[in-house]
Amino acid sequence: MDTVHLISSSLFIQSKGRRYTYNSISSVKSLQKRTVLSVSSVLTSQGGDMILPEGTCNDLNFTFDFKSYMIRKAESVNAALDVSVPLLKPLTIQEAMRYSLLRGGKRVRPLLCIAANTPLIAACELVGGDEATAMSAACAVEMIHVSSLIHDDLPCMDNADVRRGKPTNHKVFGEGLAVLTGDALLALAFENMTVVSSGLVSPERTVRAVIELAKTIGTKGLVAGQVIDLSSEGLNPEVAGIERLEFIHLHKTAALLEAAAVIGVIMGGGTDEEMEKLRKYARCIGLLFQVVDDILDVTKSTEELGKSTGKDAIAGKLTYPEALLGLEKWRELAEKLSRKAKEQLLGFDSDKVAPLVALASYIASRNN
Amino acid sequence: MDTVHLISSSLFIQSKGRRYTYNSISSVKSLQKRTVLSVSSVLTSQGGDMILPEGTCNDLNFTFDFKSYMIRKAESVNAALDVSVPLLKPLTIQEAMRYSLLRGGKRVRPLLCIAANTPLIAACELVGGDEATAMSAACAVEMIHVSSLIHDDLPCMDNADVRRGKPTNHKVFGEGLAVLTGDALLALAFENMTVVSSGLVSPERTVRAVIELAKTIGTKGLVAGQVIDLSSEGLNPEVAGIERLEFIHLHKTAALLEAAAVIGVIMGGGTDEEMEKLRKYARCIGLLFQVVDDILDVTKSTEELGKSTGKDAIAGKLTYPEALLGLEKWRELAEKLSRKAKEQLLGFDSDKVAPLVALASYIASRNN
Repeated sequence: MDTVHLISSSLFIQSKGRRYTYNSISSVKSLQKRTVLSVSSVLTSQGGDMILPEGTCNDLNFTFDFKSYMIRKAESVNAALDVSVPLLKPLTIQEAMRYSLLRGGKRVRPLLCIAANTPLIAACELVGGDEATAMSAACAVEMIHVSSLIHDDLPCMDNADVRRGKPTNHKVFGEGLAVLTGDALLALAFENMTVVSSGLVSPERTVRAVIELAKTIGTKGLVAGQVIDLSSEGLNPEVAGIERLEFIHLHKTAALLEAAAVIGVIMGGGTDEEMEKLRKYARCIGLLFQVVDDILDVTKSTEELGKSTGKDAIAGKLTYPEALLGLEKWRELAEKLSRKAKEQLLGFDSDKVAPLVALASYIASRNN
Repeated sequence: MDTVHLISSSLFIQSKGRRYTYNSISSVKSLQKRTVLSVSSVLTSQGGDMILPEGTCNDLNFTFDFKSYMIRKAESVNAALDVSVPLLKPLTIQEAMRYSLLRGGKRVRPLLCIAANTPLIAACELVGGDEATAMSAACAVEMIHVSSLIHDDLPCMDNADVRRGKPTNHKVFGEGLAVLTGDALLALAFENMTVVSSGLVSPERTVRAVIELAKTIGTKGLVAGQVIDLSSEGLNPEVAGIERLEFIHLHKTAALLEAAAVIGVIMGGGTDEEMEKLRKYARCIGLLFQVVDDILDVTKSTEELGKSTGKDAIAGKLTYPEALLGLEKWRELAEKLSRKAKEQLLGFDSDKVAPLVALASYIASRNN
């Protein structure tokens, strides 16, 4: 039984002797059938089969040149994204889509989708077949990500002025067009994935990928995370509790990274077992991504990150490091999540999973 | 060649001796591969193969009890929609989705999807098989429609207070949640359609339906219509011209009705020829729907319609009847569109297309 319920009390930190209860997530049925990994299960090492012996990861290949790989794949993704939004009429909306989609962004999600696809594709790396089967899905995941960023940045939501080092979409194009730009990117993700995949991937697999992507966007994923995030503004961290924080991070961040990896596996024709391993891997690096993000938010400036920082604290919003545990404990958690992610990759061809191993290390050590 | 380009100048009214040009729609490449029917081609009877001899429709069966049919199908749709958004946590967003999705609405789009599906399904009407194959798609189309209404009603867009006889979503739940409710419904449409269809419809057909739905939402459909609608506020009708109005109506209204019918055909296993006929039919009733809507907007009160009326004129937005042609000409157009829609149904089993024939009559004569 791989499922670790989010609300299993034995897995949660009872910080300062207090048990935090939060009704809105006390019976998240939508998550029951998914593999859920909790931050606290990592911190307290009570994750059952999730914990492998220390040092097991040393067997994996760490000499992989991740920087070159990342640049190469990001260039491929950028080229595919560029083609996916041609400058047709009406021009304003296409320009708004291209503004947020094409410039900036580390392309972590598309890269994850392609990298998760790679180990499943037999003998086609030389002809680049691996990349093609996952590219439209990789672009779709990035479109969903950018769509959610545009909507989350709106004045009626997080009211952010800067994103990826430049003014947010609504600052440039106005609120109405920003709402429509998010909608258009959301729809384009499904169109792009299904149209481009036709002929490369079987319809059965394409349908599975559509289901995975759709579930990740709505009330089982991104939207749920943002809803709880919005309702948490102004709450005292200790009152809100770590469960709420974890719910937000699992839904706002980990869910889409999980979808990226799982869709990569689906497009590559992987088995259910392989899918579950990469689902767990992605969930680990999803939490890792957010833990690092929260550390950066309190330790770096707006200029260094290319987005507003310290804003969460100013708005009374919660950040992991400031709530309950402290920075040092958070750095320790990041290291554990990174190791746990890599453990899921044991059993795959070590050369082919090298990008995924390196991605976990990159996310753990990134500084912007 | 069935394609009638929107911008074919010979098809357009040169009202008051002036030819209106509008760059944003002068080369709408996204529409080039679709069957485009222009209002003016109907009014000027220059629609080529679209015009059949007067009176041809008399062969069709008009005795069908449409009211009972509509009530029965709407009940089925409402039941399916109810199941599709269970009251799970986080509750607020699910409540907001249910608020806009479940109460009110004539269910014209789902009904069209089911009715278009019916003629294609062989010998399974008795066991209700016809409805089941199209029901998840019918619900998906309604979810997309409601999603677009919620976003269009936002203060940063049309700033509407009333929709379907009750306060708009953002008035009840706030702007941030209204944006997220629209997003969640948009995603749920794809999830619902693909999950529920699995086992009932082949993956090939499901993928085709996903592509059709996705294209309809974004910059080739709803979003494009709303973008041009927003940019038209405050323009003098005579300066804006009928082409712009037509672009808005074709994209904001006709596109989704077209998708509803086409997806019904796809789910029912129809041929390409059948799909093209029902695509044209739906485009006719899409324009018809809007023409009637515009007539109602200037002739009925807010109380009678259950939504704000006369608002368009107050906001300086264009309405068909007031721009260029006058009410009487508009009523004439409605009649012609209704007849033209019905002409597309010739050749189908007259009993099975009875709902579609009746739907055209209903849309032409509706008074709210």
